[in-house]
Amino acid sequence: MISRADTLALDDADGLAFARARFALPPGVIYLDGNSLGALPRRTAARVADTVTREWGERLIGSWNDAGASVGGLGGGWMEAPARVGARIARLVGAAADEVIVTDTVSANVFKLAAAALALRPGRPTIVTEAGNFPTDVYVLEGLARLTGATLRVVNDPLAALDGDTALLWLTQTHYRTGAVRDLAAVTAAAHAAGALAGWDLSHSAGALAVDLTAANADFATGCGYKFLNGGPGAPAFAYVARAHHGTVDQPLTGWMGHAEPFAFEERYRPAPGIARLLGGTPGILGLTALSSGVATFDGVEMAAAAAKSAALGDLIIALVEERCPEVTIACPRERRGAQVSLAHPHAYAIAQALIARGVVGDFRPPDVIRFGLPALYVRFVDVWDAVDALADVLATGAWRDPRFAVRQAVT
Amino acid sequence: MISRADTLALDDADGLAFARARFALPPGVIYLDGNSLGALPRRTAARVADTVTREWGERLIGSWNDAGASVGGLGGGWMEAPARVGARIARLVGAAADEVIVTDTVSANVFKLAAAALALRPGRPTIVTEAGNFPTDVYVLEGLARLTGATLRVVNDPLAALDGDTALLWLTQTHYRTGAVRDLAAVTAAAHAAGALAGWDLSHSAGALAVDLTAANADFATGCGYKFLNGGPGAPAFAYVARAHHGTVDQPLTGWMGHAEPFAFEERYRPAPGIARLLGGTPGILGLTALSSGVATFDGVEMAAAAAKSAALGDLIIALVEERCPEVTIACPRERRGAQVSLAHPHAYAIAQALIARGVVGDFRPPDVIRFGLPALYVRFVDVWDAVDALADVLATGAWRDPRFAVRQAVT
Repeated sequence: MISRADTLALDDADGLAFARARFALPPGVIYLDGNSLGALPRRTAARVADTVTREWGERLIGSWNDAGASVGGLGGGWMEAPARVGARIARLVGAAADEVIVTDTVSANVFKLAAAALALRPGRPTIVTEAGNFPTDVYVLEGLARLTGATLRVVNDPLAALDGDTALLWLTQTHYRTGAVRDLAAVTAAAHAAGALAGWDLSHSAGALAVDLTAANADFATGCGYKFLNGGPGAPAFAYVARAHHGTVDQPLTGWMGHAEPFAFEERYRPAPGIARLLGGTPGILGLTALSSGVATFDGVEMAAAAAKSAALGDLIIALVEERCPEVTIACPRERRGAQVSLAHPHAYAIAQALIARGVVGDFRPPDVIRFGLPALYVRFVDVWDAVDALADVLATGAWRDPRFAVRQAVT
Repeated sequence: MISRADTLALDDADGLAFARARFALPPGVIYLDGNSLGALPRRTAARVADTVTREWGERLIGSWNDAGASVGGLGGGWMEAPARVGARIARLVGAAADEVIVTDTVSANVFKLAAAALALRPGRPTIVTEAGNFPTDVYVLEGLARLTGATLRVVNDPLAALDGDTALLWLTQTHYRTGAVRDLAAVTAAAHAAGALAGWDLSHSAGALAVDLTAANADFATGCGYKFLNGGPGAPAFAYVARAHHGTVDQPLTGWMGHAEPFAFEERYRPAPGIARLLGGTPGILGLTALSSGVATFDGVEMAAAAAKSAALGDLIIALVEERCPEVTIACPRERRGAQVSLAHPHAYAIAQALIARGVVGDFRPPDVIRFGLPALYVRFVDVWDAVDALADVLATGAWRDPRFAVRQAVT
């Protein structure tokens, strides 16, 4: 039996325990949904306020060139913010600083990168992805295929589907529902062996795992700013293009910020050198400020250590659930798992709601999964013990049968 | 001769003078660049702070369903924010509440709407736009044409270029450099007479002119949130689709938020009914909050009155410049002009910088134009008098010849 005191001892020995003070967590809540929306970093409110009041309100358009380096959430000018924040994210995903930029949404970036892959592989009209991928990846690839006449193959075994027609293998590294993690290097190598490019959705990996895009030789990637990177609701996404493609990558959402000289107002598009050509319209600065502050919560944190702690938190949940909640099925891998666990139960929706009512915030994913997200920076071992304790009680008492927990919310 | 006292009298008689108190304008600055970046509304800082601290920090994912109606910048849940803010913008552009939604950037929306036009007009492979249009419109249409094989015609006389191959006439209503305004209804009718759809970039019109998309029978439109709508740097854009197309419009950036049931996590895309299918990725909530607060500065303001005041401000500048600055050329129309004036001088760049150094903030657009933006909500008649007084002095003294005013900034 694992006792609560055992978990308090684990927290005492935790080399990342210092990071929790970087977050403004609400009292009385055990927040295990940072894989959906990262918690609020303590410094974000002041930084966003500075961007609003001083950078925008006082300096106005001057902040595009110089927002005031020392005080503002971003430093430097707003114009360079997408590259500057991208460079900080690069360290977390194993990329060079000039291979990552912050822009648009994951959805838009999937579109841009997949279109770029088709352009880089003429004569190969097919994009391969997996059934059960996060919906937006598949939906956007469908939209691109419908627009261009490309073929989209959504298959159970994507590696087996690679052939001489494949321009791009587009996968998500960490599965949103099961938490299963793909081997970035091995899968990328398989795509390359088939003559295809490999593109990755890192939404549930960035800030959760020790991703190494360079070592994997990955071509393209994108990921969320609002999950493990703690960038706030709907934070802008990041996009990665391997330097080998910087001279040739051709994406179709060619807005003015991706032009070589946006303020020359030239008649025709001429792509910026390097990763900046992934930019499109004017970047949202409030979102960038909050994302910058979110990424700063990783200062002094090695991703290998963070991933190891999240894995230990997950192992602990699994052990406790097996000990105390036999009616719950472990619906995630025991190894090669993202910073989350998935627990299955036929009444998962109502159970998740009953837990939220007790201040244990996870979420539900259809058809029958409760997800607990385990960001290493602010989840403690004792939180996990208390969460499973609440789960065991909700099951033992049948508290989840309360009719109000059956009412579906728009966002589940 | 128009005296400063004359302009103070005009301010006393101004029926929109009350609106200036809605803005936190920096002391000592005459801000005539609201057509580039709208000024900070006084209530925005508190509303954004509430979104950060309470809606995100305390309520966390619960805010997607219910952010707390009475205090938050948006009210209701974050999920409905794009439609809710869009409905408030709809009044300002003469659209029905359910025809406008806030999403992505102008660049992305141009792409989506132009692609939708090609799908609605099969067998017509051509998009027509004008030479000298705002660059991002042309750049994005180039990107779409390159991706799809459609033909883009960038011509001096777009109406003359309409023919049986034209799927879409895409124009900007108010020209960014000259301020010239196109007749929305007449041009739309000409497009329709040729069997084409009419799409409009309203970036310099929304919040500046009395736009009436419904009366014009326009098909598509998009526009900036960060200019006259006062939504903050890089605020999200809005998109309009006439209700007649709601059942058939098919845009390719089919992210999960445009799905009929995003949280059903269905395997394949199924478009949301109506304007919501213009949505793509997860919306940036901080930007939406600030935009909501920006749009609220128009509460109780009729666009016809705002447009009339901006026109009067522009007429005053033109009269004063003709009186006092004979070496400056009026580079904008005398009538059918947006809420801005354009003044040409061979040394426009340095003159604009010299004015900024004196606290008169306009901007420069190549090759030789100084723009003064004239948002009716916060620019006074006396501001215009003082600005031209400064311009006359900068010219008379040659102050603009100071070498520091020749140094080009990244953003001009």
